[in-house]
Amino acid sequence: MNWINEGSTTTPAGFWAGTAACAIKKPGLLDVALLYSEVDCTAAAVFTKNRVVAAPVIVDRQTLEANRERIRAIVANSGNANASTGKPGLENARQMQTVTARALGCDAGQVLVLSTGVIGVQLPMEKVSAGIREASNNLSPEQGSSAARAIMTTDTHAKYRAVKVRLPGGEVTIGGMAKGAGMIHPNMATLLGVFTTDARIAPERLDQMLRTAVDQSFNRITVDGDTSTNDTVILLANGKSQVPVVDQDSLAKFQAALTDICLALAHMIVRDGEGAGKFVEIQVCGAPDDAAAHQVATTIATSPLVKTAFAGSDANWGRILAAAGRAGVDFDQDQAALWIGVQTAKELQLVNHGTPVNYLEVDASKIFSEPEFKIWLDLGNGAGASTIWTSDLTHEYVSINADYRT
Amino acid sequence: MNWINEGSTTTPAGFWAGTAACAIKKPGLLDVALLYSEVDCTAAAVFTKNRVVAAPVIVDRQTLEANRERIRAIVANSGNANASTGKPGLENARQMQTVTARALGCDAGQVLVLSTGVIGVQLPMEKVSAGIREASNNLSPEQGSSAARAIMTTDTHAKYRAVKVRLPGGEVTIGGMAKGAGMIHPNMATLLGVFTTDARIAPERLDQMLRTAVDQSFNRITVDGDTSTNDTVILLANGKSQVPVVDQDSLAKFQAALTDICLALAHMIVRDGEGAGKFVEIQVCGAPDDAAAHQVATTIATSPLVKTAFAGSDANWGRILAAAGRAGVDFDQDQAALWIGVQTAKELQLVNHGTPVNYLEVDASKIFSEPEFKIWLDLGNGAGASTIWTSDLTHEYVSINADYRT
Repeated sequence: MNWINEGSTTTPAGFWAGTAACAIKKPGLLDVALLYSEVDCTAAAVFTKNRVVAAPVIVDRQTLEANRERIRAIVANSGNANASTGKPGLENARQMQTVTARALGCDAGQVLVLSTGVIGVQLPMEKVSAGIREASNNLSPEQGSSAARAIMTTDTHAKYRAVKVRLPGGEVTIGGMAKGAGMIHPNMATLLGVFTTDARIAPERLDQMLRTAVDQSFNRITVDGDTSTNDTVILLANGKSQVPVVDQDSLAKFQAALTDICLALAHMIVRDGEGAGKFVEIQVCGAPDDAAAHQVATTIATSPLVKTAFAGSDANWGRILAAAGRAGVDFDQDQAALWIGVQTAKELQLVNHGTPVNYLEVDASKIFSEPEFKIWLDLGNGAGASTIWTSDLTHEYVSINADYRT
Repeated sequence: MNWINEGSTTTPAGFWAGTAACAIKKPGLLDVALLYSEVDCTAAAVFTKNRVVAAPVIVDRQTLEANRERIRAIVANSGNANASTGKPGLENARQMQTVTARALGCDAGQVLVLSTGVIGVQLPMEKVSAGIREASNNLSPEQGSSAARAIMTTDTHAKYRAVKVRLPGGEVTIGGMAKGAGMIHPNMATLLGVFTTDARIAPERLDQMLRTAVDQSFNRITVDGDTSTNDTVILLANGKSQVPVVDQDSLAKFQAALTDICLALAHMIVRDGEGAGKFVEIQVCGAPDDAAAHQVATTIATSPLVKTAFAGSDANWGRILAAAGRAGVDFDQDQAALWIGVQTAKELQLVNHGTPVNYLEVDASKIFSEPEFKIWLDLGNGAGASTIWTSDLTHEYVSINADYRT
């Protein structure tokens, strides 16, 4: 498996991208992205679990129910989430499909839709339609990075990667782009991820592999614990490499590469989280099962007290234990052990059997002062383990989310 | 029911309080409080649900298992939570009982213990013992407010109230004090509440009434969602008024008054929450049941995005709906309605059938600019309802919790 320098969603064979600035965002900023495959793709997608879902999520679910083998394009806009927009919003999302299909010469049912940005405001469809047509006119196999820029909201930089994998049948490429948690009034945090591959993969396998990869990556990061109405990750496989992914060896290798690229983009999102100054890996083990470990790790990673301690470079382990204690998972505090580190998680032990060991505060503070560090919590109550990545809670986070209009 | 001006835990007949400054906190700051009843009390208590519990919680649970009818005193210290302190911590909590019992001439098993402050550090027992003896020497029926001051951590003011209730058998008084969520490195948020009454109430009824009152008050407030290792609310009834609370009428009236005083102190805690600039009431109705409504209200009240919007006076209702959507409660977004207001919650409608109504942004902002306002969310999926009170997430919150040592 090899990372490709400057690789993106258009690095796999047969994928093209185009973009446009149609003034949904501030004039001049890219806000429409079109991703196009020369041939039909199998497709899989994972959507937000939020009960409140945006129109494009509803439309994509319906589209994929009817067609998971002949997808040709994804149309995305930033600056407007098309969420909480009722029936007109649904019609607008469908119109985005129609306009895209007409511009590309395919069926509306072959187009998936993504939106991110303002909530509760109808899309300016004239602008959007013009933007889609413009994007379709500048499609090229080099525009993947431009597409990644066009889906940004408060992201400070575009996020894209690509990787080559050697399989028994030959070499395949996986490309990806993502945008992270960004909200400007009255925006929503939205996580969007789009992955492409020239491998040939049946839709059921594609779905299964995407779910596994997302579970190991995007589902293990948190900036502020607020899931969005629009969160969507899509994977398209167009088979252009002629390399099939059917045998166990190919499946395992492709899965590993897909998980890795998802993880790389997920980590980029955390590092570029709103106001994020730190990137912290939280490993929890010794839980009754993996799900319980994940629950504890998530509770720690979303605790405002823990996250402000990260921001303050304050090795305040009591907050970590207290967050673990309220996660709803059974453990005996007298069995808990806590370690922290920079290169590895177990460089300095802070707690053993639930009580502080004799460490130097200056050593603990030094680790918490690093821009990236790791935490290792052993609950001493089983073999369940989980890892999660998170950022700190800073003044900048409050500024971005509270002070935008003041 | 009448509020008593400057009333406190020593307002009910037969309760005395004493305090001391024994240098657990900065020298000169009160950090030991003793509450003493002239006669035996029935007692009830509600403790943190956190799996990680402090030594005094363990000791109080054991004490109350053995004795719920002859409690004579509560000894409390601030500045050190005696949490994550292992066996020595347990021995220290028991020693606090012993020293108190000796000073007051009762049994150790008649003393309850409270601690709040630093976690993971052993109590300086010489100082604490000296403080307890000093406090026992200045016991008086006028020191309830002083005791409320002695249990403060980052609270900016002491919190105490008292109320008189006329029952069929005569008049009884309920007094209370509380401290809120305050943490200075390496402190913990801790909620402590102590209530006293001169009514005569059997321990089973006392327990039941305290649970009901706490469920309606302290369990419905949130500053940052982080429960502590030390959270404790205690109610003592010494019967000095000779008025029994046994008949239905007395029980109902006493319950109402107890809930009211708990609610008054709970609201004080939110208003004095760390960095809190706003006091927001969140009413959720139309849920499948009350527990589901509570779950939705809690998710909204702890959402960093919602709380920063409060701080920014930004009527960003999309964040409220999105938080509701991830609460794990079933509802149809197309049935949701949202109102906001200052005097009442339904002054201005923002959302109907899941989509924004035609309101003026300036009107919404005006309400969100108030120091206190209300939100009313109808999920349109049942008769379940719940109300919760919360504060905003401000720069001051981050400063208090992240920047203390920088």
